[in-house]
Amino acid sequence: MYKLTQKDTGVCTANGFFADGISAGLKANNEKDMAFIFSENECEVASVFTTNKMYAAPIKHFRAKGDFKTNFVLINAKNANAMTGKAGVSDIDDILETLPTNLVNPLMSSTGVIGVRLAKEKIIKGSKLFDLSKKESNAAANAIMTTDTFSKEIAFKVELEDGSSFSIGAMAKGAGMINPAMATMLCFITTDAKVTKQEMQDILDEVTITTFNAASVDGDTSTNDTVLLLANASSGTYDKNAFKDALHKIMLFLAREMVRDGEGATKLVTYEVTGAKDDKEAEVVAKALSDSLLVKTALYGEDPNWGRIASTVGASGVDCSEESLSISFNEHCVYNKGELIFDDAMEEKTSKVMKLDTFTIACDLGISNGKFTSFGCDLGHEYVKINADYRT
Amino acid sequence: MYKLTQKDTGVCTANGFFADGISAGLKANNEKDMAFIFSENECEVASVFTTNKMYAAPIKHFRAKGDFKTNFVLINAKNANAMTGKAGVSDIDDILETLPTNLVNPLMSSTGVIGVRLAKEKIIKGSKLFDLSKKESNAAANAIMTTDTFSKEIAFKVELEDGSSFSIGAMAKGAGMINPAMATMLCFITTDAKVTKQEMQDILDEVTITTFNAASVDGDTSTNDTVLLLANASSGTYDKNAFKDALHKIMLFLAREMVRDGEGATKLVTYEVTGAKDDKEAEVVAKALSDSLLVKTALYGEDPNWGRIASTVGASGVDCSEESLSISFNEHCVYNKGELIFDDAMEEKTSKVMKLDTFTIACDLGISNGKFTSFGCDLGHEYVKINADYRT
Repeated sequence: MYKLTQKDTGVCTANGFFADGISAGLKANNEKDMAFIFSENECEVASVFTTNKMYAAPIKHFRAKGDFKTNFVLINAKNANAMTGKAGVSDIDDILETLPTNLVNPLMSSTGVIGVRLAKEKIIKGSKLFDLSKKESNAAANAIMTTDTFSKEIAFKVELEDGSSFSIGAMAKGAGMINPAMATMLCFITTDAKVTKQEMQDILDEVTITTFNAASVDGDTSTNDTVLLLANASSGTYDKNAFKDALHKIMLFLAREMVRDGEGATKLVTYEVTGAKDDKEAEVVAKALSDSLLVKTALYGEDPNWGRIASTVGASGVDCSEESLSISFNEHCVYNKGELIFDDAMEEKTSKVMKLDTFTIACDLGISNGKFTSFGCDLGHEYVKINADYRT
Repeated sequence: MYKLTQKDTGVCTANGFFADGISAGLKANNEKDMAFIFSENECEVASVFTTNKMYAAPIKHFRAKGDFKTNFVLINAKNANAMTGKAGVSDIDDILETLPTNLVNPLMSSTGVIGVRLAKEKIIKGSKLFDLSKKESNAAANAIMTTDTFSKEIAFKVELEDGSSFSIGAMAKGAGMINPAMATMLCFITTDAKVTKQEMQDILDEVTITTFNAASVDGDTSTNDTVLLLANASSGTYDKNAFKDALHKIMLFLAREMVRDGEGATKLVTYEVTGAKDDKEAEVVAKALSDSLLVKTALYGEDPNWGRIASTVGASGVDCSEESLSISFNEHCVYNKGELIFDDAMEEKTSKVMKLDTFTIACDLGISNGKFTSFGCDLGHEYVKINADYRT
């Protein structure tokens, strides 16, 4: 047994971690646009990166390092440093070389526009403003925002039965596939748990599937998507189940917050797919639903248009049939294995569900036991406005 | 050699074909909402249907017939007769039974809302208004429209070297994957060419790949998508190359018209993908581009945001690299194999391209010789408006 206690100190919750955000003049109006995370002790690193083949320079830089420990990450907003070729990587080297020499294998992470070289001088000048003794997790979480409308951080203290404890904290910005204009979702997680590199990588990979990967909205994997998990072992303790549980809670919270803060989104919808041939087919359906323009615009219109749900299931290519499918909006079944039950009374009930900020659409395919849950948002005028005007 | 002459008489161009549209009270304001196509002679039929597993009752009805000839198709708008189970199929039988007994294996085709039973009595009453001697192809093309803003028809007379001739004509409504709200793209093609069933099915399958299937926008295959090709052989003549050429011109025109008439669309963009590992990978990229929300909203914003093009190519999963990719907007190369060439002058030039109604975005992956061309439109406020409000 173990006990989780939520903390409001984000990436500075774990012992020995420091963070802050400053303004380097990349964003307008003196807004914070650069952040750092620093650890007194060197950290093991686990990571998940985009599967996009045009992956950005910071990811190339990371991958070129091989096996290493680090104690510093520099993050900038406004420029993704993607499609910038070898120059993009050497820009990172140039910037990191100017940092204090006591930093070990410093890393860089970027978000913003694609295909433009970094404002190197501004970033180098900005990095001189970093005070490595600061524990301003919220300032850091704010600095990495782009079209995000609120900052996203969460942390837990984990107390074990033997009286020892460790902490995990995180910050993220939205939102990759949800906010495709920004072409980036970034997430930084810090822990003082004494976990091995391999074990934390395995757990990170596993937890990513049902959290960040379940929040995919349109299949557009960005050039910069990054999750970094830094462990400095300074608590001297660890428990696998407790660590995994806390990490899952943290990543699920951040994934849902990113969807909720999707550009122009007014609703967070959970798609619970059950009864599929296997979990993989359930995942295909759940993601088809959260990605479908038909479904997303129906959500925005608060229209309980179950026909679009059925059509999207059928179009997803998985094993399914009109005779075995059933569909529910929260507790209301709107279609049941070939039976048309959507009358005026049901329309009234489900219209109320559609007006909620958060609700669940459940599809039972009635084939076997495969299941998967995804998260999606609606698509409305604000999305079009933000994305049609973004670059310029 | 052969000569194609365009005609403005749609599905009534081929000898022995008749068509008209009437109002059965399915649409509001006495708008035409039912159409027929009738042939004096029995026709061989070739068909392409949706791959959606929730395919609609008219498709079940068609598939249950096995091998057959027909001389009549009844088409209704406003109701797709999809997700209506066995009742949906028996509704079709009930309707078709009331038609004059001289009709041979009459077919039905439907478009509109999913999950609602047909207004059978209205449709039966409407069918009594049909006058099978009418050659009102445009009235028929108008009757099958839903959110289409203009009717879509085209025809060619084909003159062969030996002095004989045949004709092919067609009408379509938009637009399946382009207008997902309507959940249907329908296309009816008539010809008096003396072509065998198998040969015309083979040609239809082949031509579909580079026309209607290249106009797919978001992967949402509807429950009702249908292309029917009816051949009554009454010209007594045929030439394979000429037939295929005319059919390709007809289907390409209709596919492009459907995209141009996509809900809220203001632009028709051609995506020419070359240099892929093979044609299949080129197709994956071309469709990823025409489906991408990032790209579609950038088009709407008239923003030459080539970074979103690069990111979408990279996310599509095909063989590609930053170093071998090049991207052009019409004649202007904006990214060339790792070279950042998008300066202010290029921005000015390409911004002008983006303001055009029709232009081409070309991506050379620089890997091998695979190529594919797709068609897409932008996504703007009007799309959201139409789709958020459609069902109710």
